[in-house]
Amino acid sequence: MAKRPLILVTNDDGIKAPGLKYLVNIMSMIGDVIIVAPDSPKSATSQAITINSPLYVSRCYNHSNAKLEYQLSGTPADCIKFGINEILKKKPDICVSGINHGSNSSVNVLYSGTVGAAIEAGIKGVPSIGFSVLDYRWNAKFDHMEKFIISITRNVIKNKLPSDIVLNVNFPKSKVNGVKVCRQANTHWEEKFCKRENPMGKEYYWLTGDFIDNDKSNETDEYALKKGYASIVPIKFDLTAKDYIKELKKWDFNG
Amino acid sequence: MAKRPLILVTNDDGIKAPGLKYLVNIMSMIGDVIIVAPDSPKSATSQAITINSPLYVSRCYNHSNAKLEYQLSGTPADCIKFGINEILKKKPDICVSGINHGSNSSVNVLYSGTVGAAIEAGIKGVPSIGFSVLDYRWNAKFDHMEKFIISITRNVIKNKLPSDIVLNVNFPKSKVNGVKVCRQANTHWEEKFCKRENPMGKEYYWLTGDFIDNDKSNETDEYALKKGYASIVPIKFDLTAKDYIKELKKWDFNG
Repeated sequence: MAKRPLILVTNDDGIKAPGLKYLVNIMSMIGDVIIVAPDSPKSATSQAITINSPLYVSRCYNHSNAKLEYQLSGTPADCIKFGINEILKKKPDICVSGINHGSNSSVNVLYSGTVGAAIEAGIKGVPSIGFSVLDYRWNAKFDHMEKFIISITRNVIKNKLPSDIVLNVNFPKSKVNGVKVCRQANTHWEEKFCKRENPMGKEYYWLTGDFIDNDKSNETDEYALKKGYASIVPIKFDLTAKDYIKELKKWDFNG
Repeated sequence: MAKRPLILVTNDDGIKAPGLKYLVNIMSMIGDVIIVAPDSPKSATSQAITINSPLYVSRCYNHSNAKLEYQLSGTPADCIKFGINEILKKKPDICVSGINHGSNSSVNVLYSGTVGAAIEAGIKGVPSIGFSVLDYRWNAKFDHMEKFIISITRNVIKNKLPSDIVLNVNFPKSKVNGVKVCRQANTHWEEKFCKRENPMGKEYYWLTGDFIDNDKSNETDEYALKKGYASIVPIKFDLTAKDYIKELKKWDFNG
């Protein structure tokens, strides 16, 4: 019998999130699961890491189908670093992050702690996937994703990924018509800061905003999701705009 | 006389950082400076944003050569969002972030709050630059960078940048031999978690590590910096690995 793959699982919604529980259930059918996840919600922490404060780590037992489980006081990227270097002391066969409660499609990928963790694992040469669903609610439904998560994960285990690429996968809220390989839509947020006053009379703000998608292409993740498909965007962490280097070399920096 | 450009300045080391002060001094020679910076150090916060806690904002007066100055309890990316939407209520002509105390070259760009802020401004269509120096110390020297920062900034104001690109600029610790346009070096960190015990007997860890650069090319930012040059890497925030889409479309997701 083939050896079961070793699967490192994390997320950014924290160790108690239903999305993590669902992902762990699926992964335990595919391989041996090790969980290293934040001890509290760390949404929108991007690829932040903790360098100016200590990290507290503790063994925990929320998921009976995991081989090992730890919670960490840091970010999702910290969890990957700690999981690979201190707990596993070797590379897992694959890393999966999620299932995030909320979209990480288009520009949201940049703020995503879920994808930040997947990128962190990718940097370490581990084939990695971030999974998210377009439903922020804690009681989001996940069953419609199961067969696609299994298929995508098995594909990555079988085919591997180039060493500079990870996958950003997003699912519609309910039914899934199929899977589309896409590019990241060109979108942005128009922020609205909601002003309030605390009981002591001090003003504060909540960051909110409107999501603006003016990208009319049918090749984007936003388009696929609107049409009821799961979107897969292969993403790179070499940010270099290679096509622009030639142009930039013409600039005169001695002036 | 030409209108002076409106320059939004931020950083991730916080409003009191000497690197910010130096950058503000330089920028005030070029245009009208508005500062919106974190009220405390926010190193390695990547492009994190604050969505689960309130943001406190206050006017401050640390920099006499700034037209307006605010400190924010959030991240560098929050500062850009708040600065453009709530303070300026329009796009500045340029955004500069830094001067960061410490390297943001190669893989470090991904963790960088300094560059996270520059990317945030880039998403909003503002030509943006992140500046960093390879010296973590609070008393780092900056004078050797001045003429290059002026030259790079004037170039960006004059030439603009494509709407999907920002610049990541790093400087050597002391002398600068010139400016090189580079690609991001392919590097990673090998973490070492330093275990300690707090006075209450509870274990904690510090994230530390060794920087590994096996990229032998002479086209990288690490190479340029080693040779005493300032490195400029044009970076994109569309993370799509376009070359890999064709390959990924061959995978069978119905299996």
